[in-house]
Amino acid sequence: MNFPRRSWIDVAVCRALAALVAVCLIGPAANADTLPLPANLIGLGTQSGEQLLFESEARRAYWPLSMQFVTQKNQAFCGVATMVMVLNALDVAAPPTAGFDSFNVFTQDNALDERTERVLPLAVLMRQGMTLDQFGKLLEVYGVKADVQHAQASNVGAFRTAAVRNLSQPKHHVVVNYLRRVLGQERGGHISPLAAYDAKADRFLVLDVSRYKYPPVWVTTEDLFAAMNTVDNDNDGKTRGFVLIESGS
Amino acid sequence: MNFPRRSWIDVAVCRALAALVAVCLIGPAANADTLPLPANLIGLGTQSGEQLLFESEARRAYWPLSMQFVTQKNQAFCGVATMVMVLNALDVAAPPTAGFDSFNVFTQDNALDERTERVLPLAVLMRQGMTLDQFGKLLEVYGVKADVQHAQASNVGAFRTAAVRNLSQPKHHVVVNYLRRVLGQERGGHISPLAAYDAKADRFLVLDVSRYKYPPVWVTTEDLFAAMNTVDNDNDGKTRGFVLIESGS
Repeated sequence: MNFPRRSWIDVAVCRALAALVAVCLIGPAANADTLPLPANLIGLGTQSGEQLLFESEARRAYWPLSMQFVTQKNQAFCGVATMVMVLNALDVAAPPTAGFDSFNVFTQDNALDERTERVLPLAVLMRQGMTLDQFGKLLEVYGVKADVQHAQASNVGAFRTAAVRNLSQPKHHVVVNYLRRVLGQERGGHISPLAAYDAKADRFLVLDVSRYKYPPVWVTTEDLFAAMNTVDNDNDGKTRGFVLIESGS
Repeated sequence: MNFPRRSWIDVAVCRALAALVAVCLIGPAANADTLPLPANLIGLGTQSGEQLLFESEARRAYWPLSMQFVTQKNQAFCGVATMVMVLNALDVAAPPTAGFDSFNVFTQDNALDERTERVLPLAVLMRQGMTLDQFGKLLEVYGVKADVQHAQASNVGAFRTAAVRNLSQPKHHVVVNYLRRVLGQERGGHISPLAAYDAKADRFLVLDVSRYKYPPVWVTTEDLFAAMNTVDNDNDGKTRGFVLIESGS
């Protein structure tokens, strides 16, 4: 489709109106406690969201991640929750786990130890969360290969190709670090894993680890890249971006 | 199909051999830390398991539950974890939640209070878990309608009809209480929610809350009913069974 270029004010007004209409037509979201979604995002629990998963060309990552889906245990732990999901999805050997008998899995309580403390002290993590680079280094502590890509050194096409390739293969994952407000969400920097891609809609599925706040959403590649292509002041002014992950180091 | 009736020894030997062949052919399960599945169960993460979800006629319940999937936090909490998933999936108003800012959701730490203590004291819960009747009563504490059905007073056909009806509708759920070893799993009584039904295979999808131990599995209606139709010595010698759940009391 070829529309004349609209100003950002038009886009913002359109989105706000569309969101209002959507709320009026559809009623409350699947989970009444989560925030309403802007019109550019499609919730996984809606009929369209379900359909996108069934049509998706790249959804290998969805299964192990959805089976290991967790909620970040506090406002600072989006990166830790994401790391726990990915490590469990990759079957990385976990430390002993309180309460689980002889079964060891990663949790947000056992994933941080003296080695991760050297990469990112818990006191810093609690204050300002985790940067893209710290996320990559924490995965490497566990022997996982993490290729960190800042958006400023990549582009929409390269991101799409690399992410789709990983989402199509077992034992490969993609994690994104993005600024929520660029997607029309509230509000700051965030980390979550991708689970699938649908080519027709050119949308990725984000399994948002703030499950108390938002459902998983389908976001267009362009919107997602724009949200990653934002400066993170906690990371020496580098942009956010994505991490291409696979087993082994 | 009409086979001559096999003795239980034949069935046990067949299952053991089939499981052995499956392990040899397929290799380790999706999550290396979980136990291998017997041949009568199909893991959701396998190609067949994925296909069953896409073909499923009744999967309305899958979306809110998979988006709220949690791991039971200790060996006694399968019922509590299941209750948390169902209450969140039904958007029941939750108490304030530590760490989640102003967003309130149910967790295994806030779902038990002085009202649930009167139904099932925590000390008893920690010692022997939760019975089918206690599970129903705990849901009622939160104003949810819970129709408790013991298998001995039901039958395969009635269970299938009622469960499929609930899995097809928004804000309706089905929870099952069954004896694992009848399904070839290890080993005792267990509680988890159902998420979907596929008519061609006549199988239900169980979102097993012991995620450290087993993946979600597709189980035949007949096997599942047999596992529910077992006596629970902690429940006055009544059989296990299922709970038909909907919003409102």
